[in-house]
Amino acid sequence: MDWQKQIVDAAKRIEPFIVKTPIFSTKFIYPKHNIELKFEHLQHTGSFKPRGAFNSLLSAQVPKSGVVAASGGNHGAAVAFAATTLGHPAHIFVPKIAGKTKIDLIKNTGAELTIVEGAYANALVAAEKFEQDTGAMQVHAFDSIETTCGQGTLMHEWERQGLEADTILIAVGGGGLIAGSLAWLQERRKVVAVEPIKSSALASALEVGKPIDVDVSGIASNALGAKKAGKICFELAKEQGILALTIKDEDIALAQILLWNKLRQFVEPAAATALAALTSGAYVPKENEKVAVLICGGNPPSNPFD
Amino acid sequence: MDWQKQIVDAAKRIEPFIVKTPIFSTKFIYPKHNIELKFEHLQHTGSFKPRGAFNSLLSAQVPKSGVVAASGGNHGAAVAFAATTLGHPAHIFVPKIAGKTKIDLIKNTGAELTIVEGAYANALVAAEKFEQDTGAMQVHAFDSIETTCGQGTLMHEWERQGLEADTILIAVGGGGLIAGSLAWLQERRKVVAVEPIKSSALASALEVGKPIDVDVSGIASNALGAKKAGKICFELAKEQGILALTIKDEDIALAQILLWNKLRQFVEPAAATALAALTSGAYVPKENEKVAVLICGGNPPSNPFD
Repeated sequence: MDWQKQIVDAAKRIEPFIVKTPIFSTKFIYPKHNIELKFEHLQHTGSFKPRGAFNSLLSAQVPKSGVVAASGGNHGAAVAFAATTLGHPAHIFVPKIAGKTKIDLIKNTGAELTIVEGAYANALVAAEKFEQDTGAMQVHAFDSIETTCGQGTLMHEWERQGLEADTILIAVGGGGLIAGSLAWLQERRKVVAVEPIKSSALASALEVGKPIDVDVSGIASNALGAKKAGKICFELAKEQGILALTIKDEDIALAQILLWNKLRQFVEPAAATALAALTSGAYVPKENEKVAVLICGGNPPSNPFD
Repeated sequence: MDWQKQIVDAAKRIEPFIVKTPIFSTKFIYPKHNIELKFEHLQHTGSFKPRGAFNSLLSAQVPKSGVVAASGGNHGAAVAFAATTLGHPAHIFVPKIAGKTKIDLIKNTGAELTIVEGAYANALVAAEKFEQDTGAMQVHAFDSIETTCGQGTLMHEWERQGLEADTILIAVGGGGLIAGSLAWLQERRKVVAVEPIKSSALASALEVGKPIDVDVSGIASNALGAKKAGKICFELAKEQGILALTIKDEDIALAQILLWNKLRQFVEPAAATALAALTSGAYVPKENEKVAVLICGGNPPSNPFD
């Protein structure tokens, strides 16, 4: 499969609708290294997810009954935003743990919203029933070609903005973002997967040799808490033999505070997870290694203006 | 006086110590216009002030007794940061209205801090007494050549980053930042001064024909609440005949919320004041006019991690 062509096509397709997010390079957050960052939390709805959502909707014939998605929050907000922007009805199912910020984000798009008791898996069951009952189009949060190619446009964009890094640290939930990055980069740069130790679907899959169900908890679980790594992500990660690191919640929290103290960026724990690999010492770059960290989402549990 | 040369010299002088802050361009915050932004709140201590502070300290022979400053908060934090970075003792006088965030910022640098009852003017009196008693060097918040040239490096940097704007909106307190911008740009681009209606020292000065004392209050007063416009700023603004707009507090608050909702930037009211000129309709750009807005500080009254 020609990932590069598909990602270039996706980038053209979604270009009118998405934010070209800013990059930033700083020598003040890690000793003796200039760290490149991309602030993808400035994307619509505060995360990278609209890239995949727009690409999925623009690649398909959306039925009159519209679009349905299950989500821990960010994917649902993105699908709701993309669908309503493009004039399609949207119905989003979220578990309660999505939290007020993300639930409000979805409501504000004008999409229909159902809050489901229990975990993400329960929201997915409800969304699948809705799909069967109404014929609405399901947009998968990570494990589809269209979502993967949409998320892949991020790395394509970053390279066009002048990315210099040898190594890029990326937080992983179900693996859509890192799959898109691996698909685009094709080993031209080193990619490191970073997961919370309490929700490490990809590290577990790579250890066992196939995606398996894992327990999910911790401060980043409403964004990174996929029970199982996506197949597309797993295959690419295995094929390219990437490093997968797992990080303690307290180190993620410290990286989140660092982003505020040093850079005045107030992001959710998931978005600080990749940086935490560096600041906790889990990933130690070589002397001349150029490192980039992707800041992928900015929807903290409580909105400063609530 | 050769402002351009002095600002280029200042830029070289302070370069190792300051953050080259990110730029960002978005078509999603104002209809039919692509707005250029510079995120100067990512500067050390969360505002543009370290540019002037570093330039002042690096241009002078700092006495053994060190450095003293009076400040509504941001300037004090910047002087404290610059002095301690360069190894000088620093003593900062702030009025209580500086607020916890800014007071903590100063404390965290390791500088000595005195909190003064009353307004900024009272802190200034205390700082001047300290200067006389100890021989410490006073760093003026806005009305000195060194401070002006330091703040001027911001616009110098933005142009090197590819600024395209015909028109730049800048918030004004005492006028150090806009003075530096006017000094650098020399009418090559249109600069618009934006003040809260409740603390409009520059607009009042331009109306009357000289800097006069004004009453100061409102949501941005701990950053923009200078009682009198600086002479340097006033002379440059008068000479170049710039437009000075005044904005209601409620419009500043709405712009502050917009920066969070659309761009996940959580800034203080002062930093949203320039944007408010646009979003409130106080400044209406022409159809093809390219507009830039400077986001100058990010120290909201309550820190999200308090």
